[in-house]
Amino acid sequence: MREKRLRQISMVLSNWLESGKESRLAGYLQRFHSADIAEICKFIGHKEKLRVFDFLPPEKIAWVLSEMESVVRQDILKEMDVHLLSTVIGSMPSDDAADLIADVPDEKAEEVLSSINREESEEVQKLLEYAPDSAGGIMTVDFVSVPENITAGETINRMREMEPNEPIYNVFVVDEYQRLAGILTLDTLVRAPAEKPISDIMNKDFEKVTPYEDQEEVSEIVKKYDLNALPVVDEDGHLLGRITVDDVIDVIEEEATEDILKMVGTNEEELLRKSVFKIAGIRLPWLFVTLAGELLTCGLLMSFSKTLTQAIALVFFVPIIMAIGGNIGIQSSTIVVRGLATGSIDFSLLWKVLFREMRVGMIMGVTCSVVVGTVAHFIGDTPFLGIIVAVSMFFAITTAAMTGTLVPLLFKRFHIDPAIASGPFITTSNDITGLLIYFALSTLLLNHIS
Amino acid sequence: MREKRLRQISMVLSNWLESGKESRLAGYLQRFHSADIAEICKFIGHKEKLRVFDFLPPEKIAWVLSEMESVVRQDILKEMDVHLLSTVIGSMPSDDAADLIADVPDEKAEEVLSSINREESEEVQKLLEYAPDSAGGIMTVDFVSVPENITAGETINRMREMEPNEPIYNVFVVDEYQRLAGILTLDTLVRAPAEKPISDIMNKDFEKVTPYEDQEEVSEIVKKYDLNALPVVDEDGHLLGRITVDDVIDVIEEEATEDILKMVGTNEEELLRKSVFKIAGIRLPWLFVTLAGELLTCGLLMSFSKTLTQAIALVFFVPIIMAIGGNIGIQSSTIVVRGLATGSIDFSLLWKVLFREMRVGMIMGVTCSVVVGTVAHFIGDTPFLGIIVAVSMFFAITTAAMTGTLVPLLFKRFHIDPAIASGPFITTSNDITGLLIYFALSTLLLNHIS
Repeated sequence: MREKRLRQISMVLSNWLESGKESRLAGYLQRFHSADIAEICKFIGHKEKLRVFDFLPPEKIAWVLSEMESVVRQDILKEMDVHLLSTVIGSMPSDDAADLIADVPDEKAEEVLSSINREESEEVQKLLEYAPDSAGGIMTVDFVSVPENITAGETINRMREMEPNEPIYNVFVVDEYQRLAGILTLDTLVRAPAEKPISDIMNKDFEKVTPYEDQEEVSEIVKKYDLNALPVVDEDGHLLGRITVDDVIDVIEEEATEDILKMVGTNEEELLRKSVFKIAGIRLPWLFVTLAGELLTCGLLMSFSKTLTQAIALVFFVPIIMAIGGNIGIQSSTIVVRGLATGSIDFSLLWKVLFREMRVGMIMGVTCSVVVGTVAHFIGDTPFLGIIVAVSMFFAITTAAMTGTLVPLLFKRFHIDPAIASGPFITTSNDITGLLIYFALSTLLLNHIS
Repeated sequence: MREKRLRQISMVLSNWLESGKESRLAGYLQRFHSADIAEICKFIGHKEKLRVFDFLPPEKIAWVLSEMESVVRQDILKEMDVHLLSTVIGSMPSDDAADLIADVPDEKAEEVLSSINREESEEVQKLLEYAPDSAGGIMTVDFVSVPENITAGETINRMREMEPNEPIYNVFVVDEYQRLAGILTLDTLVRAPAEKPISDIMNKDFEKVTPYEDQEEVSEIVKKYDLNALPVVDEDGHLLGRITVDDVIDVIEEEATEDILKMVGTNEEELLRKSVFKIAGIRLPWLFVTLAGELLTCGLLMSFSKTLTQAIALVFFVPIIMAIGGNIGIQSSTIVVRGLATGSIDFSLLWKVLFREMRVGMIMGVTCSVVVGTVAHFIGDTPFLGIIVAVSMFFAITTAAMTGTLVPLLFKRFHIDPAIASGPFITTSNDITGLLIYFALSTLLLNHIS
């Protein structure tokens, strides 16, 4: 459903809650998908959210909470009744349950864990031990596994007896030591004759990961091999859980956000922090690198004070040279940083990419220099101003395009994350070289005529 | 398999091809997943790629080509034998076939289409008519559909007779007019008793899209409802195709790249272009906006020339004020642009976000101002320089944080894409306000003492 429609529905809800027409709510809410209810909740107040939950069955509350952003549900979980929360968590797949428990205040979480059934509680606690961005942190322990010595028909019979919390697309086949021996897609299972041994039709050549694998690597594997579920096994090959494709989609989006935020010197953590001091603390180190670099431009300008006093009109074009150089550097570096992240650029292409960015830079350099040089020519009475500005801009832009390309590639080579490091480094080095070219050229030409 | 390992394998391959040990190749290559062969191909030369294909069966070539980047395979397709290409395309799912044909040179494409079987050729041609970034452009027309008046057992029997090109996770149920009536997951189908009518167990409340829906909307729906396949129907509800989750993953990654590139005024198209003039053409409009804005700073500085001549040391701190203001503006705007894209920020949060960014800006402002102000205090003999620099930096930074937050939100409100428009606008407006504050304050204080 589209946002506008959901917003209207949220107004109807608020209205009913206010005017005491609550009796209608249960029936009305039943119609909506849990993902829609989670979105509707974004538009209503905090207290109203809790009252809406009164009219939902626990399994639906479980799904709605799973769909909510961490920041939003933390407030709700704080106030939810422990008994209700236990029922809700008991009905969730183990990975979602662990994610939810991580958002419940510590004391309350213990209470909840001790009141749900023991097996489930142990599962959840085991999952909580894995880092949230590891394979173990995103896997679910709800899966269907069968021994390898049965037939397709028997497998189907066993599936009928199970009631997993999430839809099943694959059956995992284990050997007598509970080690993963093969994967059977439901597709193959359905097509096979009932008497066929599953060891004949299962896929024995499958991808798998350990629970300690990074989630980025997990998403690479799922993406590359177009998998629907990836098994997680321990060092001896025992099946621990599975990672489903919908969790991988969340990872891909998370990683993209991380990449974007890294490029401006911050990270996802800031989205969860409410203290502005902590947010500033996350962003400041990156700014300090810029600050340190720009103090050099300060010194550079000081050393050229004589030229500056001689021809004050030179100052007028400092901002434009800096800004255009900066933007061109960012264009090249973003192309390279993203290319490295998606794999479309690697070292085998280094010279090709560098040469291309240099030529693109030169074309943009000529264009911008002509425009700004012409303006400069008609401003003030400093001799050669037009030529000085045009020539320096051209070189500043071409250098910026090359620095923007080289810096991330070099950082990558030395195993420094190019996304986080490139930004301030490129800005300041472009500012320094741009201004150096500009003032060196001015000093040369102006001294020549005087 | 990890990149390093694949690189080693590519060396072995090159070696064998060179030394004439080709007889081993067919057996060796058989072991690898098509996605791995596609990656190995990245490390070997153009001619070697074509020779590797000689040792692969057509169905495997089909998968390898599907996994390759568009830019890489275009060169291969140009030189591939028409007869082989027809066999390869004939064995592909229709959506992959259409994608591949789009990369074959026009004349050759016609030849290929006329030599594959007529039904398949028509399917592919129909798919080619949809825009590549629409639901029609990413759907496949290979799906399993059954009439609604049969039982679970009969459905399974029908599935056994079909041989789809891609694994199946859902069965689509259609009414007598071929309109989509429900969706049956294999999971439900397997668990149901054989004699159960499928109309009793199918899901009648499903999401669907038209072929003209934008792929971004498609990925939103799949993500929100955790779907494994999304049906595509025409206006009358007739089933046209399905979109699988692996295609949605590609869309999500594509859209993330698009978002990142947009923020620096370029787009995905440039990755496909080889002409540097065309690339420059894509990037220049965004630079021109910066150029136009920065010409204003030029005028601003001119109007303050008197103050400048009076105290040349003021110039030394122009770059640092600009650079820090610029970076802080980009931090705030990136947080907002990404938040708007992922849905974690919307207008209901406007004041909250603005207030938060302003406070974060103030904290960073105080920190940076103290550092730079102290440096300024000990430089040159201009009175008040330390105070002027510190106070202006503080205001420039706070304003930058607020502009960085407000501009993308305002653009979004007026339906202008904040990702593409914010960058140059924020840079230049920060430069202008930053310098205005700086020189206005200097003029005021310096005139006061003189």
